[in-house]
Amino acid sequence: MVLSSIWKRPDGSREPLPPNLVVVHRKDISPVAVQEICASVGWSKREPELIAKALENSLAVVSIWDGELLIAFARATGDKVFNATVWDVVVRPSYQRRGLGLLVMNELLKELDTYPIPLVTLYADPGTDGFYKRFGFSCDPSGVRGMFRERF
Amino acid sequence: MVLSSIWKRPDGSREPLPPNLVVVHRKDISPVAVQEICASVGWSKREPELIAKALENSLAVVSIWDGELLIAFARATGDKVFNATVWDVVVRPSYQRRGLGLLVMNELLKELDTYPIPLVTLYADPGTDGFYKRFGFSCDPSGVRGMFRERF
Repeated sequence: MVLSSIWKRPDGSREPLPPNLVVVHRKDISPVAVQEICASVGWSKREPELIAKALENSLAVVSIWDGELLIAFARATGDKVFNATVWDVVVRPSYQRRGLGLLVMNELLKELDTYPIPLVTLYADPGTDGFYKRFGFSCDPSGVRGMFRERF
Repeated sequence: MVLSSIWKRPDGSREPLPPNLVVVHRKDISPVAVQEICASVGWSKREPELIAKALENSLAVVSIWDGELLIAFARATGDKVFNATVWDVVVRPSYQRRGLGLLVMNELLKELDTYPIPLVTLYADPGTDGFYKRFGFSCDPSGVRGMFRERF
């Protein structure tokens, strides 16, 4: 996937990624910015100090910025060897439908692919599986089911 | 769940865990033993040095031993804060149907519950979801689907 062709103008035509948009592969980004972009899509509020710890303990963290504004984010946990799991893929609502979801996922998978990990997994919200299929993900292969245990 | 009541005699009756069986919460166990128990249930062979690295990068690792023999194993990855994912739950075939699966999962979740993690996830092979439901896991809540991308 050629990154420069992902960004879409509002009319749907493609253009190179504008120079004011910056892709960052770092864990030590502002946890307050992460808290705020998660809140922008209605996710439950998380404390910045917990976010900072989760980023530090993630295997890969990708953020896309428009100047000081965090406009897309994704991260993955994993063991560096056998598996990784993608979490918290989010694009700021006012920047959606421009290709940033593709861009942030593409960057995250590119970073994960620097490890020998054969298996990347995720849990897809309803209606988002088509998006992830574009990256080669498939649902419930061989009847394997995602299961969840929520404690609080 | 009272651990001493999990262990079953071959006739199905319960007894306290025999003293020769030891539950260990450590990452620095023998990777060769882990390789061997995984092979005992037909999982693809993994190199010991990769196994050692994966254990080191896991959030929690539980093993149950009968003397020098590894008879059950489970581990989890995660970010210590928001989520953990359970992997590689395995009981040696000759020790199955004695309650060791319950014991190893119970110990793993007990260790994970020392963190503030609200969400524990896993990917259940066909026919194993009933087992995990006993620990409060449910399949595809709110339509969330497990997805996989295999690279090799």
